[in-house]
Amino acid sequence: MAEPDYSRGAACIDGQFMPVGEARIPITDWGYRRSDVTYDVVGVWGGAFFRLDDHIRRFRASMQSLRMEPAESDDDIRAILTRCVQLSGLREAYVAMDCLRGRPLPGKPYHPVFARNYIAAYAIPWVWVASPEMQQRGAHLVVAKTPRIATESVDPTVKNFHWGDLTRGLFEAYDQGADFAVLPDADGNLTEGPGFNVFIVRDGAVATPDRGALEGVTRASVLELCAELGLPCAVRPVSMDEVREADEIFLTTTAGGIMPASRIDGRIMNNDRPGPVSARLRECFWQKRAEGWHATPIDYAAL
Amino acid sequence: MAEPDYSRGAACIDGQFMPVGEARIPITDWGYRRSDVTYDVVGVWGGAFFRLDDHIRRFRASMQSLRMEPAESDDDIRAILTRCVQLSGLREAYVAMDCLRGRPLPGKPYHPVFARNYIAAYAIPWVWVASPEMQQRGAHLVVAKTPRIATESVDPTVKNFHWGDLTRGLFEAYDQGADFAVLPDADGNLTEGPGFNVFIVRDGAVATPDRGALEGVTRASVLELCAELGLPCAVRPVSMDEVREADEIFLTTTAGGIMPASRIDGRIMNNDRPGPVSARLRECFWQKRAEGWHATPIDYAAL
Repeated sequence: MAEPDYSRGAACIDGQFMPVGEARIPITDWGYRRSDVTYDVVGVWGGAFFRLDDHIRRFRASMQSLRMEPAESDDDIRAILTRCVQLSGLREAYVAMDCLRGRPLPGKPYHPVFARNYIAAYAIPWVWVASPEMQQRGAHLVVAKTPRIATESVDPTVKNFHWGDLTRGLFEAYDQGADFAVLPDADGNLTEGPGFNVFIVRDGAVATPDRGALEGVTRASVLELCAELGLPCAVRPVSMDEVREADEIFLTTTAGGIMPASRIDGRIMNNDRPGPVSARLRECFWQKRAEGWHATPIDYAAL
Repeated sequence: MAEPDYSRGAACIDGQFMPVGEARIPITDWGYRRSDVTYDVVGVWGGAFFRLDDHIRRFRASMQSLRMEPAESDDDIRAILTRCVQLSGLREAYVAMDCLRGRPLPGKPYHPVFARNYIAAYAIPWVWVASPEMQQRGAHLVVAKTPRIATESVDPTVKNFHWGDLTRGLFEAYDQGADFAVLPDADGNLTEGPGFNVFIVRDGAVATPDRGALEGVTRASVLELCAELGLPCAVRPVSMDEVREADEIFLTTTAGGIMPASRIDGRIMNNDRPGPVSARLRECFWQKRAEGWHATPIDYAAL
């Protein structure tokens, strides 16, 4: 038998390691069929995980919220993720971990409480949510007409694949020649966008929503950076009018770090370039990353 | 090589037929990873599809709503479903058809508009949403605290796997010793439950919501039956108070037909048995099914 080819990434499904191209979910699994699944994504940059423990802590909290109990401990999950990266040999990687509901065990009632939950994970070459070129010019945003799924129906702090509204927002953006949409809630406050948190800057003060959005790990990093740099930063309701009138807007995500925007609904901000506060935070973020901030180095030789 | 074993069902993924146990979705596919997928389910009973054209028509409308354009025509889809059933040899089957977003084509931007959409389908032995025993005693329902995802965020008439709220409702039911939950909308009106439409009966009059729910094919069949039997039936907003005070409640779904309930939030209806209107509709439904109503027979020998 030929050696497995991990050059495009490595995966682990329910305890079995394999090339990512072979990693598949049963079509009858409720993780797919009911989107009954939670996940997390941790980045690897320069051969080290960024805030690995924070991601695993959030992943565990998400599983508990959905009453999922896979066999794997947090240490097991850490070992699986590490091995996926080691197998792939990638120094810059997008590393996903999913916990799927599974299906009811044979002979048991047709109810999710009787399913065996399990872990799937993979490491693939780094994915930029916004390309480096887009980060230079600044992302072009629109305010979506589609409201984000309400917190009462699906808790956005439990990371999930309920992206119907976010995908609709992406089509709204595409139809207007923009890159991304940011979504309001039913009260007209800012929530988040497809895969990222949103920050605004007005008169030098930074703000990001306190509700209706994932509590992002990069978002937390920005809050730390603001404190360190002495930038005023509030976590509070942010109205869509504030978004439309902001001096600067930037987006945060694992697969992209801090991504400045330069347009909102066609309005040009900062001479069509990333604004000074966004640029400063972004620069500081990557500099600290290069210095090993919150880094967990991977021993590639230990495979 | 051994002959494929289709005894547990047959599937077709993106043009390839296989036993259902081998049918899997790539872990990186947005159909899974963003639940960017629509689907439909048609029943086979006594060797014949029930309302096949209605299901395919709805499936096509759902794809169009999500701007999905798979290569397959409606006739192609009909042929795929038929072949899945033929391969399985099943006379009673649950037959699913999915259209997945896929992934952006190589070299294209990271946006769903650039993905190649494709069809997956499978036929497995008939699944009862409510077991025959449960249908005899009547289902035990609770009114969920979790509201259904709002129509403005995710259109419930486009059949989808955004089940986070429905799954939470199933856990609410389980914790109260009940079978299923029915979900309200944000205004306190009835929507639907996990995989079924809901009807109430009060003073001999039947009603089902006009919004916030899938336009079910079995629901449409009940509307036809009511007209035929001269039962007054309204499609209108139905408040949760009406649900709590109903004389009868019944649920409709492809994988179960007409399923009467006997309890709501612990209150016993009809001496803890299916009510007379529900029972009459259910009997009439299966009698007409046996007579070939809306049936498309399958030629199993034509394989």
